[in-house]
Amino acid sequence: MSTLAKAMSKFRLAVVQLQVGGVKADNLSRAKRLVKEAAGRGSNLVMLPECFNSPYGTSFFSQYAERIPGESTELLSEAARENQVYLVGGSIPEEDGGKLYNSCIVFGPDGKLILKHRKIHLFDIDVPGKIRFQESETLMGVGICYDIRFAELAQLYSRQGCQLLVYPGAFNMTTGPAHWELLQRARAVDNQLYVATASPARDESSPYVAWGHSTVVNPWGEVISKAGTEEEVIYADIDLQYLADVRQQIPITAQRRNDLYSVTSVQRGNS
Amino acid sequence: MSTLAKAMSKFRLAVVQLQVGGVKADNLSRAKRLVKEAAGRGSNLVMLPECFNSPYGTSFFSQYAERIPGESTELLSEAARENQVYLVGGSIPEEDGGKLYNSCIVFGPDGKLILKHRKIHLFDIDVPGKIRFQESETLMGVGICYDIRFAELAQLYSRQGCQLLVYPGAFNMTTGPAHWELLQRARAVDNQLYVATASPARDESSPYVAWGHSTVVNPWGEVISKAGTEEEVIYADIDLQYLADVRQQIPITAQRRNDLYSVTSVQRGNS
Repeated sequence: MSTLAKAMSKFRLAVVQLQVGGVKADNLSRAKRLVKEAAGRGSNLVMLPECFNSPYGTSFFSQYAERIPGESTELLSEAARENQVYLVGGSIPEEDGGKLYNSCIVFGPDGKLILKHRKIHLFDIDVPGKIRFQESETLMGVGICYDIRFAELAQLYSRQGCQLLVYPGAFNMTTGPAHWELLQRARAVDNQLYVATASPARDESSPYVAWGHSTVVNPWGEVISKAGTEEEVIYADIDLQYLADVRQQIPITAQRRNDLYSVTSVQRGNS
Repeated sequence: MSTLAKAMSKFRLAVVQLQVGGVKADNLSRAKRLVKEAAGRGSNLVMLPECFNSPYGTSFFSQYAERIPGESTELLSEAARENQVYLVGGSIPEEDGGKLYNSCIVFGPDGKLILKHRKIHLFDIDVPGKIRFQESETLMGVGICYDIRFAELAQLYSRQGCQLLVYPGAFNMTTGPAHWELLQRARAVDNQLYVATASPARDESSPYVAWGHSTVVNPWGEVISKAGTEEEVIYADIDLQYLADVRQQIPITAQRRNDLYSVTSVQRGNS
Protein backbone atom coordinates (compact mmCIF):
# COMPACT_ATOMS: atom_id res chain seq x y z
CA MET A 1 0.00 0.00 0.00
CA SER A 2 1.40 3.34 -0.97
CA THR A 3 1.27 5.69 1.96
CA LEU A 4 1.59 8.51 -0.51
CA ALA A 5 -1.63 7.48 -2.14
CA LYS A 6 -3.41 8.24 1.11
CA ALA A 7 -1.78 11.59 1.56
CA MET A 8 -2.93 13.58 -1.38
CA SER A 9 -1.65 17.00 -0.49
CA LYS A 10 0.78 16.31 2.33
CA PHE A 11 3.61 13.87 2.62
CA ARG A 12 6.87 13.50 4.46
CA LEU A 13 10.20 13.75 2.70
CA ALA A 14 13.39 12.37 4.23
CA VAL A 15 16.83 13.28 2.96
CA VAL A 16 19.60 10.86 3.82
CA GLN A 17 22.94 12.63 4.10
CA LEU A 18 24.98 9.47 3.79
CA GLN A 19 28.59 9.06 4.83
CA VAL A 20 30.09 7.66 1.65
CA GLY A 21 33.36 5.77 1.86
CA GLY A 22 35.57 3.65 -0.31
CA VAL A 23 33.87 0.30 0.40
CA LYS A 24 30.79 -0.09 -1.78
CA ALA A 25 29.20 -2.79 0.37
CA ASP A 26 29.39 -0.50 3.40
CA ASN A 27 27.81 2.38 1.49
CA LEU A 28 24.98 0.14 0.41
CA SER A 29 24.28 -1.30 3.84
CA ARG A 30 24.33 2.13 5.48
CA ALA A 31 21.97 3.44 2.84
CA LYS A 32 19.62 0.50 3.39
CA ARG A 33 19.61 1.00 7.16
CA LEU A 34 18.91 4.73 6.91
CA VAL A 35 16.11 4.29 4.38
CA LYS A 36 14.49 1.94 6.87
CA GLU A 37 15.01 4.43 9.69
CA ALA A 38 13.44 7.21 7.62
CA ALA A 39 10.45 5.03 6.72
CA GLY A 40 10.02 4.18 10.37
CA ARG A 41 9.58 7.88 11.05
CA GLY A 42 6.69 8.17 8.64
CA SER A 43 8.49 9.24 5.47
CA ASN A 44 6.74 8.65 2.15
CA LEU A 45 9.60 9.77 -0.03
CA VAL A 46 13.27 9.13 0.77
CA MET A 47 16.19 10.62 -1.06
CA LEU A 48 19.85 9.56 -1.18
CA PRO A 49 22.82 11.72 -2.23
CA GLU A 50 24.66 11.96 -5.51
CA CYS A 51 27.18 9.17 -5.90
CA PHE A 52 25.96 7.35 -2.80
CA ASN A 53 27.70 4.05 -3.55
CA SER A 54 31.07 5.42 -4.65
CA PRO A 55 33.57 8.10 -3.70
CA TYR A 56 33.07 11.14 -5.91
CA GLY A 57 35.77 11.64 -8.53
CA THR A 58 36.44 10.63 -12.11
CA SER A 59 39.19 8.28 -10.95
CA PHE A 60 36.62 6.18 -9.07
CA PHE A 61 33.77 6.07 -11.52
CA SER A 62 34.94 3.27 -13.78
CA GLN A 63 35.81 1.06 -10.80
CA TYR A 64 32.45 1.56 -9.06
CA ALA A 65 30.26 1.78 -12.14
CA GLU A 66 27.46 -0.75 -12.61
CA ARG A 67 24.98 -1.61 -15.26
CA ILE A 68 21.35 -0.90 -14.50
CA PRO A 69 19.83 -3.09 -13.20
CA GLY A 70 22.74 -4.14 -11.01
CA GLU A 71 23.76 -4.64 -7.42
CA SER A 72 23.03 -1.14 -6.19
CA THR A 73 19.79 -0.56 -8.00
CA GLU A 74 18.47 -3.96 -6.97
CA LEU A 75 19.16 -3.04 -3.38
CA LEU A 76 17.29 0.23 -3.91
CA SER A 77 14.33 -1.54 -5.43
CA GLU A 78 14.20 -3.92 -2.49
CA ALA A 79 14.53 -1.10 0.05
CA ALA A 80 11.70 0.83 -1.61
CA ARG A 81 9.42 -2.20 -1.61
CA GLU A 82 10.25 -3.39 1.89
CA ASN A 83 9.71 0.04 3.36
CA GLN A 84 6.83 1.07 1.12
CA VAL A 85 8.42 4.35 0.12
CA TYR A 86 9.25 6.24 -3.01
CA LEU A 87 13.02 6.14 -3.16
CA VAL A 88 15.13 8.66 -5.07
CA GLY A 89 18.34 6.71 -5.41
CA GLY A 90 20.68 9.69 -5.35
CA SER A 91 22.97 8.75 -8.16
CA ILE A 92 25.44 6.06 -9.09
CA PRO A 93 28.09 5.80 -11.79
CA GLU A 94 26.36 3.86 -14.55
CA GLU A 95 28.12 1.91 -17.27
CA ASP A 96 26.26 1.44 -20.52
CA GLY A 97 27.72 0.53 -23.87
CA GLY A 98 31.22 1.39 -22.75
CA LYS A 99 30.19 4.85 -21.58
CA LEU A 100 29.83 6.19 -18.05
CA TYR A 101 26.88 8.18 -16.79
CA ASN A 102 25.96 9.82 -13.52
CA SER A 103 22.48 8.38 -13.13
CA CYS A 104 19.62 8.82 -10.73
CA ILE A 105 17.09 6.02 -10.39
CA VAL A 106 13.72 6.42 -8.72
CA PHE A 107 11.69 3.48 -7.41
CA GLY A 108 8.08 3.30 -6.32
CA PRO A 109 6.78 1.60 -3.16
CA ASP A 110 6.18 -1.51 -5.24
CA GLY A 111 9.89 -1.71 -6.00
CA LYS A 112 9.39 -0.85 -9.64
CA LEU A 113 11.65 1.58 -11.44
CA ILE A 114 9.83 4.84 -12.16
CA LEU A 115 12.53 6.80 -13.91
CA LYS A 116 16.17 7.01 -14.73
CA HIS A 117 17.73 10.45 -15.09
CA ARG A 118 21.24 10.89 -16.42
CA LYS A 119 22.95 14.09 -15.32
CA ILE A 120 22.38 16.56 -18.10
CA HIS A 121 25.13 19.09 -17.68
CA LEU A 122 28.70 17.85 -18.15
CA PHE A 123 27.68 14.53 -19.59
CA ASP A 124 26.59 13.72 -23.04
CA ILE A 125 23.07 12.50 -23.02
CA ASP A 126 20.10 12.49 -20.82
CA VAL A 127 16.41 12.15 -20.51
CA PRO A 128 14.94 14.94 -18.39
CA GLY A 129 12.82 12.85 -16.07
CA LYS A 130 9.77 13.41 -14.04
CA ILE A 131 7.54 11.17 -12.02
CA ARG A 132 3.88 11.43 -11.21
CA PHE A 133 3.01 10.22 -7.77
CA GLN A 134 0.26 7.67 -7.94
CA GLU A 135 -3.17 8.99 -7.09
CA SER A 136 -1.91 12.44 -6.36
CA GLU A 137 -1.15 15.41 -8.49
CA THR A 138 2.40 15.74 -7.27
CA LEU A 139 4.92 15.77 -10.01
CA MET A 140 8.55 15.61 -9.07
CA GLY A 141 11.45 16.74 -11.23
CA VAL A 142 14.94 15.32 -10.89
CA GLY A 143 18.29 16.96 -11.52
CA ILE A 144 21.78 16.03 -10.40
CA CYS A 145 24.14 18.49 -8.73
CA TYR A 146 25.47 20.87 -11.41
CA ASP A 147 22.08 20.65 -13.15
CA ILE A 148 20.79 22.97 -10.42
CA ARG A 149 22.79 25.88 -11.86
CA PHE A 150 20.68 25.83 -14.99
CA ALA A 151 17.47 27.68 -14.24
CA GLU A 152 15.88 26.51 -17.47
CA LEU A 153 15.65 22.89 -16.36
CA ALA A 154 13.73 23.91 -13.24
CA GLN A 155 11.52 26.21 -15.28
CA LEU A 156 10.63 23.41 -17.67
CA TYR A 157 9.80 21.04 -14.82
CA SER A 158 7.73 23.74 -13.21
CA ARG A 159 5.80 24.48 -16.41
CA GLN A 160 5.07 20.76 -16.69
CA GLY A 161 3.47 20.85 -13.26
CA CYS A 162 6.25 19.77 -10.92
CA GLN A 163 5.78 20.80 -7.33
CA LEU A 164 8.96 19.29 -5.95
CA LEU A 165 12.43 19.31 -7.46
CA VAL A 166 15.05 16.97 -6.05
CA TYR A 167 18.75 17.39 -6.68
CA PRO A 168 21.10 14.74 -5.32
CA GLY A 169 24.33 16.70 -5.36
CA ALA A 170 27.85 17.01 -4.05
CA PHE A 171 28.94 20.63 -3.99
CA ASN A 172 32.43 21.25 -2.69
CA MET A 173 34.07 23.51 -0.12
CA THR A 174 34.25 26.44 -2.57
CA THR A 175 30.91 26.32 -4.33
CA GLY A 176 29.09 24.97 -1.28
CA PRO A 177 29.32 28.01 0.97
CA ALA A 178 28.87 30.38 -1.99
CA HIS A 179 25.98 28.86 -3.92
CA TRP A 180 24.47 25.64 -2.53
CA GLU A 181 21.68 27.21 -0.50
CA LEU A 182 21.29 30.22 -2.79
CA LEU A 183 20.60 28.08 -5.85
CA GLN A 184 18.02 26.00 -4.03
CA ARG A 185 16.22 29.05 -2.69
CA ALA A 186 16.39 30.66 -6.14
CA ARG A 187 14.77 27.63 -7.81
CA ALA A 188 12.14 27.49 -5.08
CA VAL A 189 11.14 31.15 -5.08
CA ASP A 190 11.27 31.58 -8.86
CA ASN A 191 9.10 28.55 -9.52
CA GLN A 192 7.17 28.50 -6.24
CA LEU A 193 7.79 24.88 -5.46
CA TYR A 194 9.66 22.69 -2.98
CA VAL A 195 13.33 21.98 -3.58
CA ALA A 196 15.34 19.27 -1.84
CA THR A 197 19.01 18.42 -2.07
CA ALA A 198 20.85 15.37 -0.76
CA SER A 199 24.59 15.62 -0.30
CA PRO A 200 27.01 13.00 0.96
CA ALA A 201 28.23 13.74 4.48
CA ARG A 202 31.48 15.68 4.64
CA ASP A 203 34.62 13.57 4.79
CA GLU A 204 37.73 15.71 5.17
CA SER A 205 39.95 12.76 4.31
CA SER A 206 38.27 12.22 0.96
CA PRO A 207 39.93 13.48 -2.25
CA TYR A 208 36.72 15.38 -3.00
CA VAL A 209 35.33 17.00 0.13
CA ALA A 210 31.56 17.37 -0.12
CA TRP A 211 29.91 20.39 1.47
CA GLY A 212 27.15 18.40 3.17
CA HIS A 213 24.21 20.51 4.37
CA SER A 214 21.44 18.63 2.59
CA THR A 215 18.52 21.02 2.54
CA VAL A 216 14.78 21.34 1.93
CA VAL A 217 13.36 24.70 0.83
CA ASN A 218 9.68 25.60 0.67
CA PRO A 219 7.90 27.52 -2.12
CA TRP A 220 8.30 30.80 -0.20
CA GLY A 221 12.06 30.35 -0.46
CA GLU A 222 12.59 29.44 3.18
CA VAL A 223 14.92 26.71 4.36
CA ILE A 224 12.66 24.36 6.32
CA SER A 225 15.14 21.60 7.01
CA LYS A 226 18.90 21.51 6.84
CA ALA A 227 21.55 18.97 7.77
CA GLY A 228 24.92 19.70 9.28
CA THR A 229 28.02 18.09 7.83
CA GLU A 230 27.83 14.62 9.42
CA GLU A 231 25.79 11.61 8.41
CA GLU A 232 22.17 12.20 9.37
CA VAL A 233 18.62 12.04 8.07
CA ILE A 234 16.59 15.23 7.87
CA TYR A 235 12.83 15.45 7.46
CA ALA A 236 10.40 17.90 5.94
CA ASP A 237 6.64 17.82 5.60
CA ILE A 238 5.69 18.74 2.05
CA ASP A 239 2.36 20.57 1.95
CA LEU A 240 0.90 21.10 -1.49
CA GLN A 241 -1.90 23.24 -0.12
CA TYR A 242 0.71 25.62 1.24
CA LEU A 243 2.32 25.62 -2.19
CA ALA A 244 -1.02 26.53 -3.75
CA ASP A 245 -1.44 29.33 -1.19
CA VAL A 246 1.94 30.82 -2.05
CA ARG A 247 1.09 30.72 -5.74
CA GLN A 248 -2.10 32.60 -5.00
CA GLN A 249 -0.41 35.18 -2.79
CA ILE A 250 2.21 36.07 -5.37
CA PRO A 251 0.60 35.11 -8.68
CA ILE A 252 3.70 35.10 -10.86
CA THR A 253 2.48 32.00 -12.67
CA ALA A 254 -0.69 33.74 -13.80
CA GLN A 255 1.13 36.99 -14.49
CA ARG A 256 3.95 35.54 -16.49
CA ARG A 257 4.12 37.41 -19.78
CA ASN A 258 3.94 34.53 -22.21
CA ASP A 259 3.32 37.09 -24.92
CA LEU A 260 6.86 38.42 -24.37
CA TYR A 261 9.02 35.41 -23.56
CA SER A 262 8.90 31.69 -23.18
CA VAL A 263 10.99 28.84 -21.89
CA THR A 264 10.62 25.80 -24.07
CA SER A 265 12.08 22.38 -24.37
CA VAL A 266 13.70 21.66 -27.67
CA GLN A 267 12.42 18.62 -29.53
CA ARG A 268 15.13 16.15 -30.26
CA GLY A 269 15.51 13.36 -32.69
CA ASN A 270 16.16 9.74 -31.88
CA SER A 271 19.83 10.15 -31.00
CA MET B 1 32.89 63.95 -21.91
CA SER B 2 31.56 60.62 -20.88
CA THR B 3 33.55 59.29 -17.98
CA LEU B 4 32.24 55.85 -18.82
CA ALA B 5 33.78 56.03 -22.24
CA LYS B 6 37.17 56.19 -20.59
CA ALA B 7 36.52 53.32 -18.25
CA MET B 8 35.94 50.39 -20.51
CA SER B 9 35.86 47.54 -18.08
CA LYS B 10 35.44 49.27 -14.74
CA PHE B 11 33.07 51.93 -13.61
CA ARG B 12 31.45 53.14 -10.43
CA LEU B 13 27.77 52.68 -9.78
CA ALA B 14 25.94 54.79 -7.18
CA VAL B 15 22.51 53.86 -5.88
CA VAL B 16 20.51 56.69 -4.34
CA GLN B 17 18.15 55.40 -1.67
CA LEU B 18 16.00 58.51 -1.68
CA GLN B 19 13.64 59.55 1.10
CA VAL B 20 10.45 60.06 -0.88
CA GLY B 21 7.73 62.25 0.63
CA GLY B 22 4.45 63.82 -0.38
CA VAL B 23 5.89 67.03 -1.84
CA LYS B 24 7.08 66.44 -5.37
CA ALA B 25 9.34 69.50 -5.49
CA ASP B 26 11.18 68.27 -2.40
CA ASN B 27 11.65 64.81 -3.89
CA LEU B 28 13.09 66.33 -7.04
CA SER B 29 15.49 68.69 -5.29
CA ARG B 30 16.76 65.94 -2.98
CA ALA B 31 17.27 63.65 -5.95
CA LYS B 32 19.19 66.38 -7.79
CA ARG B 33 21.42 67.06 -4.79
CA LEU B 34 22.23 63.36 -4.25
CA VAL B 35 22.99 62.74 -7.93
CA LYS B 36 25.50 65.58 -7.69
CA GLU B 37 26.96 64.13 -4.50
CA ALA B 38 27.33 60.71 -6.16
CA ALA B 39 29.00 62.22 -9.22
CA GLY B 40 31.37 64.11 -6.94
CA ARG B 41 32.51 60.75 -5.59
CA GLY B 42 33.46 59.45 -8.99
CA SER B 43 30.29 57.64 -10.03
CA ASN B 44 29.74 57.03 -13.73
CA LEU B 45 26.27 55.58 -13.39
CA VAL B 46 23.70 56.78 -10.85
CA MET B 47 20.41 55.09 -10.09
CA LEU B 48 17.28 56.43 -8.38
CA PRO B 49 14.50 54.34 -6.80
CA GLU B 50 11.15 53.30 -8.15
CA CYS B 51 8.59 56.07 -7.82
CA PHE B 52 11.18 58.62 -6.74
CA ASN B 53 9.01 61.68 -7.26
CA SER B 54 5.76 60.39 -5.74
CA PRO B 55 4.59 58.35 -2.77
CA TYR B 56 4.02 54.75 -3.83
CA GLY B 57 0.37 53.76 -4.10
CA THR B 58 -2.33 53.71 -6.71
CA SER B 59 -4.13 56.55 -4.96
CA PHE B 60 -1.18 58.85 -5.64
CA PHE B 61 -0.30 57.93 -9.18
CA SER B 62 -2.86 60.01 -11.05
CA GLN B 63 -2.06 63.10 -8.96
CA TYR B 64 1.71 62.82 -9.44
CA ALA B 65 1.73 61.48 -12.98
CA GLU B 66 3.45 63.47 -15.72
CA ARG B 67 3.83 63.24 -19.41
CA ILE B 68 7.29 62.43 -20.73
CA PRO B 69 9.04 64.78 -21.28
CA GLY B 70 7.82 66.72 -18.25
CA GLU B 71 9.04 68.40 -15.10
CA SER B 72 10.70 65.34 -13.53
CA THR B 73 12.35 63.94 -16.62
CA GLU B 74 13.66 67.37 -17.61
CA LEU B 75 15.27 67.64 -14.23
CA LEU B 76 16.82 64.19 -14.72
CA SER B 77 18.14 65.13 -18.13
CA GLU B 78 19.72 68.27 -16.68
CA ALA B 79 21.21 66.39 -13.73
CA ALA B 80 22.73 63.79 -16.05
CA ARG B 81 24.26 66.45 -18.30
CA GLU B 82 25.51 68.73 -15.51
CA ASN B 83 27.15 65.84 -13.68
CA GLN B 84 28.29 63.92 -16.74
CA VAL B 85 26.75 60.65 -15.60
CA TYR B 86 24.47 57.99 -16.91
CA LEU B 87 21.32 58.39 -14.87
CA VAL B 88 18.75 55.64 -14.33
CA GLY B 89 15.77 57.72 -13.31
CA GLY B 90 14.22 55.12 -11.02
CA SER B 91 10.63 55.39 -12.09
CA ILE B 92 7.82 57.89 -12.17
CA PRO B 93 4.10 57.55 -12.76
CA GLU B 94 3.70 58.41 -16.44
CA GLU B 95 0.49 59.58 -18.06
CA ASP B 96 0.07 58.85 -21.74
CA GLY B 97 -3.14 58.85 -23.70
CA GLY B 98 -5.24 58.69 -20.56
CA LYS B 99 -3.37 55.67 -19.22
CA LEU B 100 -0.90 55.46 -16.37
CA TYR B 101 2.43 53.67 -16.53
CA ASN B 102 5.25 53.04 -14.10
CA SER B 103 8.14 54.19 -16.25
CA CYS B 104 11.89 54.23 -15.96
CA ILE B 105 13.83 56.74 -18.03
CA VAL B 106 17.56 56.53 -18.59
CA PHE B 107 19.65 59.53 -19.65
CA GLY B 108 23.18 59.69 -20.97
CA PRO B 109 25.89 62.12 -19.86
CA ASP B 110 24.84 64.40 -22.71
CA GLY B 111 21.38 64.72 -21.18
CA LYS B 112 19.76 62.75 -23.98
CA LEU B 113 17.16 60.10 -23.30
CA ILE B 114 18.56 56.62 -23.93
CA LEU B 115 15.56 54.50 -23.11
CA LYS B 116 12.15 54.39 -21.54
CA HIS B 117 11.05 51.16 -19.88
CA ARG B 118 7.49 50.69 -18.71
CA LYS B 119 7.08 48.14 -15.94
CA ILE B 120 6.21 44.91 -17.65
CA HIS B 121 4.49 42.90 -14.98
CA LEU B 122 1.20 44.25 -13.60
CA PHE B 123 0.77 46.85 -16.30
CA ASP B 124 -0.47 46.41 -19.79
CA ILE B 125 2.26 47.26 -22.20
CA ASP B 126 5.94 47.68 -22.25
CA VAL B 127 9.08 47.78 -24.24
CA PRO B 128 11.79 45.64 -22.66
CA GLY B 129 14.64 48.12 -22.73
CA LYS B 130 18.33 47.92 -22.79
CA ILE B 131 21.10 50.41 -23.26
CA ARG B 132 24.52 50.04 -24.70
CA PHE B 133 27.09 52.19 -23.01
CA GLN B 134 28.92 54.29 -25.54
CA GLU B 135 32.32 53.00 -26.48
CA SER B 136 32.13 50.10 -24.12
CA GLU B 137 30.62 46.69 -24.39
CA THR B 138 28.54 47.06 -21.28
CA LEU B 139 24.91 46.40 -21.86
CA MET B 140 22.50 47.19 -19.08
CA GLY B 141 19.03 45.75 -18.70
CA VAL B 142 16.25 47.55 -16.84
CA GLY B 143 13.34 46.13 -14.89
CA ILE B 144 11.06 47.69 -12.31
CA CYS B 145 10.39 46.10 -8.95
CA TYR B 146 7.99 43.15 -9.47
CA ASP B 147 9.72 42.51 -12.81
CA ILE B 148 12.58 41.02 -10.80
CA ARG B 149 10.40 38.03 -9.86
CA PHE B 150 10.31 36.89 -13.47
CA ALA B 151 13.53 35.06 -14.19
CA GLU B 152 12.82 35.04 -17.92
CA LEU B 153 13.29 38.79 -18.30
CA ALA B 154 16.74 38.59 -16.73
CA GLN B 155 17.58 35.56 -18.87
CA LEU B 156 16.65 37.41 -22.04
CA TYR B 157 18.73 40.43 -21.07
CA SER B 158 21.60 38.15 -20.23
CA ARG B 159 21.39 36.30 -23.55
CA GLN B 160 21.46 39.67 -25.32
CA GLY B 161 24.74 40.46 -23.61
CA CYS B 162 23.71 42.47 -20.55
CA GLN B 163 26.29 42.54 -17.80
CA LEU B 164 24.35 44.70 -15.36
CA LEU B 165 20.67 44.54 -14.49
CA VAL B 166 19.12 47.45 -12.62
CA TYR B 167 15.81 47.23 -10.84
CA PRO B 168 14.43 50.37 -9.25
CA GLY B 169 11.98 48.82 -6.81
CA ALA B 170 9.92 49.26 -3.70
CA PHE B 171 9.46 45.96 -1.93
CA ASN B 172 7.45 46.10 1.28
CA MET B 173 7.84 44.90 4.86
CA THR B 174 6.57 41.40 3.98
CA THR B 175 8.25 40.68 0.68
CA GLY B 176 11.34 42.70 1.52
CA PRO B 177 12.77 40.51 4.27
CA ALA B 178 11.66 37.33 2.49
CA HIS B 179 12.72 37.90 -1.09
CA TRP B 180 14.43 41.23 -1.88
CA GLU B 181 18.01 40.08 -1.48
CA LEU B 182 17.31 36.49 -2.54
CA LEU B 183 15.88 37.53 -5.91
CA GLN B 184 18.82 39.80 -6.65
CA ARG B 185 21.34 37.13 -5.74
CA ALA B 186 19.39 34.58 -7.79
CA ARG B 187 19.41 36.79 -10.91
CA ALA B 188 23.12 37.49 -10.39
CA VAL B 189 24.29 33.92 -9.87
CA ASP B 190 22.04 32.38 -12.53
CA ASN B 191 23.12 34.84 -15.19
CA GLN B 192 26.57 35.69 -13.86
CA LEU B 193 26.15 39.43 -14.00
CA TYR B 194 25.85 42.43 -11.70
CA VAL B 195 22.45 43.29 -10.24
CA ALA B 196 21.56 46.58 -8.57
CA THR B 197 18.36 47.67 -6.88
CA ALA B 198 17.33 51.13 -5.74
CA SER B 199 14.59 51.39 -3.14
CA PRO B 200 13.10 54.49 -1.58
CA ALA B 201 14.23 54.98 2.01
CA ARG B 202 11.88 53.50 4.61
CA ASP B 203 9.20 55.84 5.90
CA GLU B 204 7.13 54.22 8.64
CA SER B 205 4.53 56.97 8.38
CA SER B 206 3.90 56.31 4.70
CA PRO B 207 0.82 54.31 3.62
CA TYR B 208 3.20 51.96 1.76
CA VAL B 209 6.30 51.25 3.82
CA ALA B 210 9.24 50.47 1.56
CA TRP B 211 11.81 47.95 2.70
CA GLY B 212 14.83 50.08 1.79
CA HIS B 213 18.12 48.15 1.65
CA SER B 214 19.12 49.11 -1.87
CA THR B 215 21.71 46.56 -2.88
CA VAL B 216 24.40 45.71 -5.41
CA VAL B 217 25.26 42.05 -6.06
CA ASN B 218 28.23 40.78 -8.05
CA PRO B 219 28.26 37.94 -10.61
CA TRP B 220 29.37 35.45 -7.93
CA GLY B 221 26.12 36.19 -6.08
CA GLU B 222 27.74 38.19 -3.29
CA VAL B 223 26.25 41.37 -1.87
CA ILE B 224 28.97 43.97 -2.42
CA SER B 225 27.08 47.04 -1.27
CA LYS B 226 23.92 47.44 0.75
CA ALA B 227 22.07 50.40 2.21
CA GLY B 228 20.30 50.48 5.54
CA THR B 229 16.78 51.85 5.75
CA GLU B 230 17.49 55.60 5.79
CA GLU B 231 18.25 57.95 2.93
CA GLU B 232 21.79 57.35 1.72
CA VAL B 233 23.90 56.76 -1.35
CA ILE B 234 25.74 53.48 -1.72
CA TYR B 235 28.57 52.78 -4.14
CA ALA B 236 29.92 49.76 -5.96
CA ASP B 237 32.75 49.36 -8.42
CA ILE B 238 31.58 47.33 -11.38
CA ASP B 239 34.38 45.24 -12.84
CA LEU B 240 33.64 43.55 -16.13
CA GLN B 241 36.92 41.66 -16.07
CA TYR B 242 35.83 40.07 -12.79
CA LEU B 243 32.54 39.18 -14.46
CA ALA B 244 34.44 37.52 -17.31
CA ASP B 245 36.54 35.62 -14.77
CA VAL B 246 33.45 34.25 -13.02
CA ARG B 247 32.00 33.13 -16.33
CA GLN B 248 35.20 31.27 -17.05
CA GLN B 249 35.38 29.66 -13.61
CA ILE B 250 31.84 28.29 -13.79
CA PRO B 251 31.14 28.03 -17.51
CA ILE B 252 27.37 27.69 -17.37
CA THR B 253 27.00 29.96 -20.37
CA ALA B 254 29.09 27.66 -22.53
CA GLN B 255 27.54 24.55 -21.02
CA ARG B 256 23.95 25.57 -21.34
CA ARG B 257 22.10 22.81 -23.19
CA ASN B 258 20.56 24.81 -26.00
CA ASP B 259 19.75 21.51 -27.64
CA LEU B 260 17.34 20.76 -24.79
CA TYR B 261 15.75 24.08 -23.82
CA SER B 262 15.69 27.70 -24.73
CA VAL B 263 14.45 31.00 -23.39
CA THR B 264 13.21 33.18 -26.18
CA SER B 265 11.50 36.49 -26.60
CA VAL B 266 8.20 36.31 -28.38
CA GLN B 267 7.86 38.47 -31.46
CA ARG B 268 4.95 40.81 -31.22
CA GLY B 269 2.92 42.76 -33.70
CA ASN B 270 2.44 46.49 -33.82
CA SER B 271 0.03 46.71 -30.91
